[in-house]
Amino acid sequence: MSRHDAAEVETVPAPSERTEVRRLPERGVYDRDEITAIVDEALICHVGIVHEGHPVVIPTNHGRVGDALYLHGSPASRLLRAMKRGEEVCVTMTIVDGLVVAKSAFHNSMNYRSVVVFGEPRVVDDPVEKERALAAITDHVLPGRWDESRPMTDAEARATLVVAVALDEASAKVRTGPPEDDEADRELGIWAGVVPLALVAAAPVPAPDLVAGAELPSSVIGYGRR
Amino acid sequence: MSRHDAAEVETVPAPSERTEVRRLPERGVYDRDEITAIVDEALICHVGIVHEGHPVVIPTNHGRVGDALYLHGSPASRLLRAMKRGEEVCVTMTIVDGLVVAKSAFHNSMNYRSVVVFGEPRVVDDPVEKERALAAITDHVLPGRWDESRPMTDAEARATLVVAVALDEASAKVRTGPPEDDEADRELGIWAGVVPLALVAAAPVPAPDLVAGAELPSSVIGYGRR
Repeated sequence: MSRHDAAEVETVPAPSERTEVRRLPERGVYDRDEITAIVDEALICHVGIVHEGHPVVIPTNHGRVGDALYLHGSPASRLLRAMKRGEEVCVTMTIVDGLVVAKSAFHNSMNYRSVVVFGEPRVVDDPVEKERALAAITDHVLPGRWDESRPMTDAEARATLVVAVALDEASAKVRTGPPEDDEADRELGIWAGVVPLALVAAAPVPAPDLVAGAELPSSVIGYGRR
Repeated sequence: MSRHDAAEVETVPAPSERTEVRRLPERGVYDRDEITAIVDEALICHVGIVHEGHPVVIPTNHGRVGDALYLHGSPASRLLRAMKRGEEVCVTMTIVDGLVVAKSAFHNSMNYRSVVVFGEPRVVDDPVEKERALAAITDHVLPGRWDESRPMTDAEARATLVVAVALDEASAKVRTGPPEDDEADRELGIWAGVVPLALVAAAPVPAPDLVAGAELPSSVIGYGRR
Protein backbone atom coordinates (compact mmCIF):
# COMPACT_ATOMS: atom_id res chain seq x y z
CA MET A 1 0.00 0.00 0.00
CA SER A 2 1.53 3.26 -1.05
CA ARG A 3 1.10 6.61 0.57
CA HIS A 4 -1.46 8.72 -1.22
CA ASP A 5 -1.40 12.35 -2.07
CA ALA A 6 -4.72 14.08 -1.70
CA ALA A 7 -4.69 14.73 -5.42
CA GLU A 8 -4.43 11.04 -6.23
CA VAL A 9 -7.26 9.60 -4.25
CA GLU A 10 -10.57 8.71 -5.76
CA THR A 11 -13.48 9.69 -3.60
CA VAL A 12 -16.19 7.05 -3.44
CA PRO A 13 -18.57 8.26 -2.17
CA ALA A 14 -17.96 11.98 -1.75
CA PRO A 15 -16.90 12.43 1.86
CA SER A 16 -19.17 14.52 3.97
CA GLU A 17 -17.65 17.46 5.76
CA ARG A 18 -17.51 15.27 8.84
CA THR A 19 -15.58 12.38 7.35
CA GLU A 20 -13.20 14.49 5.35
CA VAL A 21 -9.76 14.03 6.83
CA ARG A 22 -8.83 17.36 8.32
CA ARG A 23 -5.21 16.99 9.36
CA LEU A 24 -2.36 15.75 7.21
CA PRO A 25 -4.57 15.49 4.14
CA GLU A 26 -1.92 13.50 2.29
CA ARG A 27 -2.81 10.63 4.63
CA GLY A 28 -6.50 10.66 3.72
CA VAL A 29 -7.75 7.93 1.42
CA TYR A 30 -11.35 7.41 0.46
CA ASP A 31 -11.23 4.61 -2.06
CA ARG A 32 -14.08 2.22 -1.35
CA ASP A 33 -11.98 -0.91 -1.82
CA GLU A 34 -9.31 0.37 0.53
CA ILE A 35 -11.94 1.19 3.15
CA THR A 36 -13.53 -2.25 2.99
CA ALA A 37 -10.11 -3.94 3.09
CA ILE A 38 -9.30 -2.13 6.34
CA VAL A 39 -12.75 -2.90 7.81
CA ASP A 40 -12.27 -6.58 6.94
CA GLU A 41 -8.76 -6.89 8.32
CA ALA A 42 -9.30 -4.98 11.57
CA LEU A 43 -10.07 -7.55 14.25
CA ILE A 44 -12.07 -5.21 16.46
CA CYS A 45 -13.57 -1.75 16.30
CA HIS A 46 -14.22 1.03 18.79
CA VAL A 47 -17.76 2.38 18.81
CA GLY A 48 -18.43 5.92 20.02
CA ILE A 49 -21.83 7.15 21.15
CA VAL A 50 -23.07 10.22 22.92
CA HIS A 51 -24.64 9.10 26.18
CA GLU A 52 -26.53 11.83 28.02
CA GLY A 53 -24.20 14.35 26.43
CA HIS A 54 -21.01 12.46 27.27
CA PRO A 55 -18.74 10.62 24.85
CA VAL A 56 -18.53 6.86 25.43
CA VAL A 57 -16.19 4.56 23.48
CA ILE A 58 -16.59 0.77 23.71
CA PRO A 59 -14.61 -1.95 21.90
CA THR A 60 -16.54 -4.63 20.08
CA ASN A 61 -16.54 -7.01 17.10
CA HIS A 62 -17.94 -6.31 13.70
CA GLY A 63 -18.66 -7.97 10.39
CA ARG A 64 -19.40 -6.71 6.91
CA VAL A 65 -21.68 -7.75 4.07
CA GLY A 66 -21.45 -5.44 1.08
CA ASP A 67 -21.98 -1.89 2.28
CA ALA A 68 -23.42 -2.93 5.63
CA LEU A 69 -21.27 -2.93 8.75
CA TYR A 70 -22.85 -5.18 11.36
CA LEU A 71 -22.47 -4.93 15.13
CA HIS A 72 -24.08 -7.13 17.75
CA GLY A 73 -24.46 -7.56 21.47
CA SER A 74 -26.79 -8.03 24.36
CA PRO A 75 -29.99 -5.97 24.04
CA ALA A 76 -29.43 -4.94 27.67
CA SER A 77 -26.06 -3.27 27.11
CA ARG A 78 -25.84 0.51 27.16
CA LEU A 79 -24.21 0.54 23.75
CA LEU A 80 -26.79 -1.68 22.12
CA ARG A 81 -29.67 0.18 23.74
CA ALA A 82 -28.37 3.43 22.27
CA MET A 83 -27.97 1.79 18.88
CA LYS A 84 -31.46 0.32 19.10
CA ARG A 85 -32.77 3.86 19.48
CA GLY A 86 -30.98 4.71 16.24
CA GLU A 87 -28.63 7.15 17.93
CA GLU A 88 -25.69 8.11 15.80
CA VAL A 89 -22.46 6.17 16.21
CA CYS A 90 -18.88 6.66 15.13
CA VAL A 91 -17.15 3.33 14.47
CA THR A 92 -13.36 3.44 14.21
CA MET A 93 -11.00 0.60 13.30
CA THR A 94 -7.22 0.92 13.49
CA ILE A 95 -4.56 -1.50 12.29
CA VAL A 96 -1.05 -0.69 13.47
CA ASP A 97 1.49 -1.82 10.86
CA GLY A 98 4.66 -0.55 12.44
CA LEU A 99 6.54 1.90 14.61
CA VAL A 100 8.16 4.73 12.68
CA VAL A 101 11.38 5.43 14.55
CA ALA A 102 12.92 8.80 13.62
CA LYS A 103 16.26 10.33 14.50
CA SER A 104 14.44 13.18 16.22
CA ALA A 105 11.86 12.59 18.93
CA PHE A 106 9.52 14.98 17.13
CA HIS A 107 9.26 12.86 13.98
CA ASN A 108 8.47 9.51 15.60
CA SER A 109 5.24 8.20 14.16
CA MET A 110 3.38 5.02 13.31
CA ASN A 111 2.44 3.23 10.16
CA TYR A 112 -1.24 2.44 10.41
CA ARG A 113 -4.48 2.09 8.52
CA SER A 114 -7.67 3.39 10.07
CA VAL A 115 -11.27 3.82 9.05
CA VAL A 116 -13.86 6.10 10.62
CA VAL A 117 -17.55 5.42 9.90
CA PHE A 118 -20.42 7.69 10.89
CA GLY A 119 -23.98 6.45 10.77
CA GLU A 120 -27.30 5.81 12.39
CA PRO A 121 -27.73 2.15 13.26
CA ARG A 122 -30.66 0.22 11.89
CA VAL A 123 -31.93 -2.74 13.93
CA VAL A 124 -31.78 -5.93 11.88
CA ASP A 125 -35.11 -7.70 12.42
CA ASP A 126 -35.42 -9.75 9.26
CA PRO A 127 -34.38 -13.29 10.27
CA VAL A 128 -32.56 -13.99 7.02
CA GLU A 129 -30.50 -10.79 7.20
CA LYS A 130 -29.92 -11.33 10.91
CA GLU A 131 -28.50 -14.81 10.36
CA ARG A 132 -26.32 -13.54 7.53
CA ALA A 133 -25.09 -10.72 9.79
CA LEU A 134 -24.29 -13.05 12.69
CA ALA A 135 -22.44 -15.37 10.32
CA ALA A 136 -20.50 -12.37 8.98
CA ILE A 137 -19.50 -11.27 12.49
CA THR A 138 -18.41 -14.83 13.40
CA ASP A 139 -16.53 -15.34 10.15
CA HIS A 140 -14.95 -11.88 10.39
CA VAL A 141 -13.03 -13.10 13.43
CA LEU A 142 -12.45 -16.68 12.21
CA PRO A 143 -13.27 -17.21 8.55
CA GLY A 144 -15.35 -20.36 8.15
CA ARG A 145 -16.19 -20.73 11.83
CA TRP A 146 -19.95 -20.20 11.37
CA ASP A 147 -20.27 -23.41 9.37
CA GLU A 148 -18.02 -25.36 11.76
CA SER A 149 -20.04 -24.42 14.86
CA ARG A 150 -23.17 -25.77 16.47
CA PRO A 151 -25.75 -23.50 14.83
CA MET A 152 -27.35 -20.65 16.71
CA THR A 153 -30.77 -21.49 18.12
CA ASP A 154 -33.77 -19.19 17.74
CA ALA A 155 -33.54 -18.38 21.45
CA GLU A 156 -29.87 -17.43 21.11
CA ALA A 157 -30.62 -15.27 18.07
CA ARG A 158 -33.42 -13.53 19.99
CA ALA A 159 -30.98 -12.86 22.84
CA THR A 160 -28.68 -11.04 20.41
CA LEU A 161 -29.36 -7.59 19.05
CA VAL A 162 -27.87 -6.94 15.62
CA VAL A 163 -27.60 -3.52 14.02
CA ALA A 164 -26.38 -2.39 10.63
CA VAL A 165 -24.48 0.82 9.92
CA ALA A 166 -24.17 1.80 6.28
CA LEU A 167 -20.62 2.33 5.06
CA ASP A 168 -21.79 5.41 3.14
CA GLU A 169 -20.10 7.95 5.34
CA ALA A 170 -16.66 6.45 5.83
CA SER A 171 -13.11 7.65 5.43
CA ALA A 172 -9.72 6.05 5.76
CA LYS A 173 -6.35 7.32 6.85
CA VAL A 174 -3.14 5.51 6.01
CA ARG A 175 0.53 6.09 6.80
CA THR A 176 3.21 3.93 5.25
CA GLY A 177 6.92 4.18 4.67
CA PRO A 178 10.06 5.28 6.48
CA PRO A 179 10.46 8.15 8.94
CA GLU A 180 10.66 11.65 7.50
CA ASP A 181 13.40 13.33 9.46
CA ASP A 182 14.47 16.90 8.88
CA GLU A 183 17.19 17.49 6.30
CA ALA A 184 19.23 19.12 9.07
CA ASP A 185 19.27 15.80 10.96
CA ARG A 186 20.48 13.73 8.02
CA GLU A 187 24.06 13.30 9.23
CA LEU A 188 23.17 12.34 12.79
CA GLY A 189 24.51 8.92 13.69
CA ILE A 190 21.20 7.86 15.24
CA TRP A 191 19.44 4.75 13.97
CA ALA A 192 16.06 5.34 12.34
CA GLY A 193 13.68 3.07 10.51
CA VAL A 194 10.51 1.07 10.89
CA VAL A 195 9.69 -1.75 13.31
CA PRO A 196 6.97 -3.77 11.54
CA LEU A 197 4.20 -4.99 13.82
CA ALA A 198 1.47 -7.55 13.28
CA LEU A 199 -1.12 -9.37 15.34
CA VAL A 200 0.23 -12.92 15.39
CA ALA A 201 -1.37 -16.15 16.61
CA ALA A 202 0.45 -18.57 18.89
CA ALA A 203 -0.33 -22.29 19.16
CA PRO A 204 -4.05 -22.93 19.87
CA VAL A 205 -4.93 -24.02 23.42
CA PRO A 206 -7.65 -26.72 23.46
CA ALA A 207 -10.59 -26.25 25.82
CA PRO A 208 -10.57 -28.54 28.87
CA ASP A 209 -13.88 -30.16 27.89
CA LEU A 210 -12.97 -31.30 24.36
CA VAL A 211 -14.17 -34.75 23.42
CA ALA A 212 -11.55 -37.19 22.15
CA GLY A 213 -10.94 -36.85 18.45
CA ALA A 214 -12.12 -33.24 18.09
CA GLU A 215 -9.59 -32.05 15.55
CA LEU A 216 -8.25 -28.57 14.94
CA PRO A 217 -10.60 -26.92 12.44
CA SER A 218 -9.44 -25.19 9.29
CA SER A 219 -10.57 -21.82 10.68
CA VAL A 220 -7.91 -22.08 13.39
CA ILE A 221 -5.04 -23.73 11.50
CA GLY A 222 -2.53 -21.11 10.38
CA TYR A 223 -4.69 -18.27 11.68
CA GLY A 224 -3.70 -14.76 10.68
CA ARG A 225 -5.41 -11.47 9.90
CA ARG A 226 -4.23 -11.06 6.30
CA MET B 1 -4.28 -12.67 35.01
CA SER B 2 -7.29 -14.47 36.40
CA ARG B 3 -10.90 -13.71 35.78
CA HIS B 4 -12.39 -11.69 38.61
CA ASP B 5 -15.72 -12.00 40.26
CA ALA B 6 -17.32 -8.73 41.13
CA ALA B 7 -17.11 -9.66 44.77
CA GLU B 8 -13.34 -10.05 44.60
CA VAL B 9 -12.28 -6.80 43.04
CA GLU B 10 -10.95 -3.94 45.00
CA THR B 11 -12.33 -0.63 43.87
CA VAL B 12 -9.73 2.10 43.70
CA PRO B 13 -11.13 4.69 43.36
CA ALA B 14 -14.85 4.09 43.73
CA PRO B 15 -16.19 3.92 40.18
CA SER B 16 -18.62 6.60 39.23
CA GLU B 17 -21.95 5.50 37.85
CA ARG B 18 -20.52 6.15 34.40
CA THR B 19 -17.44 3.96 34.66
CA GLU B 20 -19.13 1.13 36.49
CA VAL B 21 -19.18 -1.84 34.18
CA ARG B 22 -22.80 -2.45 33.34
CA ARG B 23 -22.81 -5.71 31.42
CA LEU B 24 -21.24 -8.95 32.54
CA PRO B 25 -20.18 -7.51 35.89
CA GLU B 26 -17.91 -10.47 36.55
CA ARG B 27 -15.64 -9.02 33.87
CA GLY B 28 -15.30 -5.66 35.59
CA VAL B 29 -12.06 -4.94 37.38
CA TYR B 30 -11.18 -1.66 38.99
CA ASP B 31 -7.89 -2.33 40.70
CA ARG B 32 -5.62 0.63 40.14
CA ASP B 33 -2.54 -1.44 39.34
CA GLU B 34 -4.45 -3.50 36.81
CA ILE B 35 -5.77 -0.35 35.13
CA THR B 36 -2.31 1.22 34.84
CA ALA B 37 -0.83 -2.05 33.56
CA ILE B 38 -3.39 -2.10 30.73
CA VAL B 39 -2.83 1.60 29.97
CA ASP B 40 0.91 1.00 29.81
CA GLU B 41 0.77 -2.09 27.61
CA ALA B 42 -1.83 -0.82 25.12
CA LEU B 43 0.09 0.60 22.18
CA ILE B 44 -2.62 3.04 21.10
CA CYS B 45 -5.90 4.40 22.41
CA HIS B 46 -9.15 5.54 20.85
CA VAL B 47 -10.34 8.98 21.98
CA GLY B 48 -14.01 9.85 21.82
CA ILE B 49 -15.34 13.39 21.84
CA VAL B 50 -18.70 14.98 21.20
CA HIS B 51 -18.29 17.28 18.21
CA GLU B 52 -21.30 19.48 17.56
CA GLY B 53 -23.48 16.82 19.12
CA HIS B 54 -21.96 13.95 17.14
CA PRO B 55 -19.69 11.19 18.46
CA VAL B 56 -16.19 11.21 16.96
CA VAL B 57 -13.58 8.51 17.73
CA ILE B 58 -9.95 9.02 16.72
CA PRO B 59 -6.96 6.72 17.32
CA THR B 60 -3.85 8.22 18.85
CA ASN B 61 -0.85 7.55 21.11
CA HIS B 62 -0.70 8.10 24.80
CA GLY B 63 1.73 8.05 27.70
CA ARG B 64 1.34 7.90 31.46
CA VAL B 65 3.10 9.49 34.42
CA GLY B 66 1.55 8.52 37.74
CA ASP B 67 -2.17 9.25 37.56
CA ALA B 68 -1.89 11.47 34.48
CA LEU B 69 -2.70 10.11 31.04
CA TYR B 70 -1.04 12.30 28.42
CA LEU B 71 -2.19 12.80 24.83
CA HIS B 72 -0.59 15.01 22.21
CA GLY B 73 -1.01 16.27 18.69
CA SER B 74 -1.17 19.22 16.39
CA PRO B 75 -2.96 22.22 17.92
CA ALA B 76 -4.83 22.49 14.59
CA SER B 77 -6.45 19.05 14.74
CA ARG B 78 -10.14 18.81 15.52
CA LEU B 79 -9.45 16.43 18.39
CA LEU B 80 -6.80 18.60 20.00
CA ARG B 81 -8.88 21.75 19.57
CA ALA B 82 -11.74 20.07 21.42
CA MET B 83 -9.38 18.92 24.13
CA LYS B 84 -7.87 22.39 24.40
CA ARG B 85 -11.35 23.69 25.18
CA GLY B 86 -11.47 21.18 28.03
CA GLU B 87 -14.34 19.25 26.46
CA GLU B 88 -14.89 15.87 28.01
CA VAL B 89 -13.22 12.86 26.42
CA CYS B 90 -13.59 9.12 26.72
CA VAL B 91 -10.26 7.35 26.16
CA THR B 92 -10.46 3.59 25.56
CA MET B 93 -7.59 1.13 25.18
CA THR B 94 -8.09 -2.49 24.21
CA ILE B 95 -5.55 -5.31 24.16
CA VAL B 96 -6.75 -8.47 22.43
CA ASP B 97 -5.15 -11.53 24.03
CA GLY B 98 -6.88 -14.25 22.10
CA LEU B 99 -9.83 -15.62 20.22
CA VAL B 100 -12.19 -17.69 22.31
CA VAL B 101 -13.45 -20.41 19.98
CA ALA B 102 -16.55 -22.17 21.27
CA LYS B 103 -18.39 -25.25 20.02
CA SER B 104 -21.48 -23.11 19.49
CA ALA B 105 -21.43 -19.96 17.40
CA PHE B 106 -23.26 -18.15 20.21
CA HIS B 107 -20.45 -18.60 22.73
CA ASN B 108 -17.55 -17.40 20.62
CA SER B 109 -15.79 -14.57 22.42
CA MET B 110 -12.43 -12.89 22.89
CA ASN B 111 -9.93 -12.70 25.66
CA TYR B 112 -9.08 -9.06 26.10
CA ARG B 113 -8.17 -6.36 28.55
CA SER B 114 -9.66 -2.91 28.12
CA VAL B 115 -9.70 0.36 30.02
CA VAL B 116 -12.18 3.20 29.68
CA VAL B 117 -11.21 6.61 31.04
CA PHE B 118 -13.52 9.61 31.30
CA GLY B 119 -12.15 13.06 31.95
CA GLU B 120 -11.81 16.68 31.07
CA PRO B 121 -8.43 17.36 29.48
CA ARG B 122 -6.11 19.91 30.99
CA VAL B 123 -3.65 21.68 28.68
CA VAL B 124 -0.08 21.11 29.83
CA ASP B 125 1.64 24.50 29.68
CA ASP B 126 4.37 24.09 32.25
CA PRO B 127 7.53 23.38 30.23
CA VAL B 128 8.90 20.84 32.71
CA GLU B 129 5.67 18.85 32.81
CA LYS B 130 5.33 19.17 29.04
CA GLU B 131 8.76 17.70 28.42
CA ARG B 132 8.09 14.91 30.88
CA ALA B 133 4.79 14.19 29.14
CA LEU B 134 6.35 14.14 25.66
CA ALA B 135 9.07 11.82 26.93
CA ALA B 136 6.41 9.57 28.44
CA ILE B 137 4.48 9.41 25.15
CA THR B 138 7.68 8.63 23.21
CA ASP B 139 8.86 6.04 25.71
CA HIS B 140 5.39 4.51 25.94
CA VAL B 141 5.80 3.37 22.33
CA LEU B 142 9.52 2.60 22.51
CA PRO B 143 10.93 2.53 26.04
CA GLY B 144 14.17 4.52 26.16
CA ARG B 145 13.71 6.20 22.77
CA TRP B 146 13.44 9.72 24.20
CA ASP B 147 17.03 9.62 25.43
CA GLU B 148 18.28 8.04 22.20
CA SER B 149 16.72 10.72 19.96
CA ARG B 150 17.78 14.16 18.83
CA PRO B 151 16.05 16.23 21.54
CA MET B 152 12.92 18.18 20.79
CA THR B 153 13.54 21.85 20.07
CA ASP B 154 11.52 24.63 21.65
CA ALA B 155 9.86 25.28 18.29
CA GLU B 156 8.87 21.63 17.99
CA ALA B 157 7.50 21.59 21.52
CA ARG B 158 5.48 24.73 20.75
CA ALA B 159 4.06 23.03 17.67
CA THR B 160 2.76 20.18 19.85
CA LEU B 161 -0.24 20.47 22.11
CA VAL B 162 -0.14 18.21 25.15
CA VAL B 163 -3.10 17.52 27.40
CA ALA B 164 -3.46 15.51 30.58
CA VAL B 165 -6.48 13.45 31.56
CA ALA B 166 -6.60 12.26 35.16
CA LEU B 167 -6.97 8.52 35.61
CA ASP B 168 -9.48 9.15 38.42
CA GLU B 169 -12.52 7.98 36.55
CA ALA B 170 -11.31 4.78 34.94
CA SER B 171 -12.51 1.22 34.78
CA ALA B 172 -11.15 -1.97 33.29
CA LYS B 173 -12.79 -5.01 31.80
CA VAL B 174 -10.95 -8.29 31.41
CA ARG B 175 -11.84 -11.67 29.97
CA THR B 176 -9.49 -14.61 30.28
CA GLY B 177 -9.75 -18.35 30.04
CA PRO B 178 -11.36 -21.00 27.86
CA PRO B 179 -14.74 -20.87 26.12
CA GLU B 180 -17.82 -21.49 28.24
CA ASP B 181 -20.02 -23.70 26.16
CA ASP B 182 -23.40 -24.93 27.30
CA GLU B 183 -23.47 -28.19 29.24
CA ALA B 184 -25.77 -29.56 26.53
CA ASP B 185 -22.98 -29.08 23.96
CA ARG B 186 -20.34 -30.92 25.98
CA GLU B 187 -20.35 -34.10 23.91
CA LEU B 188 -20.21 -32.38 20.52
CA GLY B 189 -17.14 -33.41 18.56
CA ILE B 190 -16.35 -29.81 17.60
CA TRP B 191 -12.98 -28.34 18.48
CA ALA B 192 -13.02 -25.47 20.95
CA GLY B 193 -10.29 -23.53 22.69
CA VAL B 194 -8.31 -20.32 22.60
CA VAL B 195 -6.11 -18.91 19.85
CA PRO B 196 -3.62 -16.65 21.68
CA LEU B 197 -2.85 -13.39 19.86
CA ALA B 198 -0.13 -10.84 20.40
CA LEU B 199 1.26 -7.81 18.64
CA VAL B 200 4.63 -9.05 17.46
CA ALA B 201 7.56 -7.16 15.92
CA ALA B 202 9.32 -8.34 12.77
CA ALA B 203 12.89 -7.46 11.81
CA PRO B 204 13.51 -3.67 11.87
CA VAL B 205 13.78 -1.97 8.46
CA PRO B 206 16.50 0.74 8.43
CA ALA B 207 15.60 4.15 7.00
CA PRO B 208 17.11 4.88 3.58
CA ASP B 209 19.06 7.90 4.88
CA LEU B 210 20.94 6.20 7.73
CA VAL B 211 24.57 7.19 8.09
CA ALA B 212 27.12 4.41 8.10
CA GLY B 213 27.64 2.93 11.55
CA ALA B 214 24.26 3.92 13.02
CA GLU B 215 23.58 0.84 15.09
CA LEU B 216 20.29 -0.66 16.17
CA PRO B 217 19.37 1.02 19.47
CA SER B 218 18.36 -0.89 22.58
CA SER B 219 14.81 0.48 22.32
CA VAL B 220 14.34 -1.46 19.07
CA ILE B 221 16.24 -4.67 19.82
CA GLY B 222 13.87 -7.41 20.93
CA TYR B 223 10.90 -5.08 20.84
CA GLY B 224 7.67 -6.30 22.40
CA ARG B 225 4.72 -4.89 24.31
CA ARG B 226 5.11 -6.93 27.50
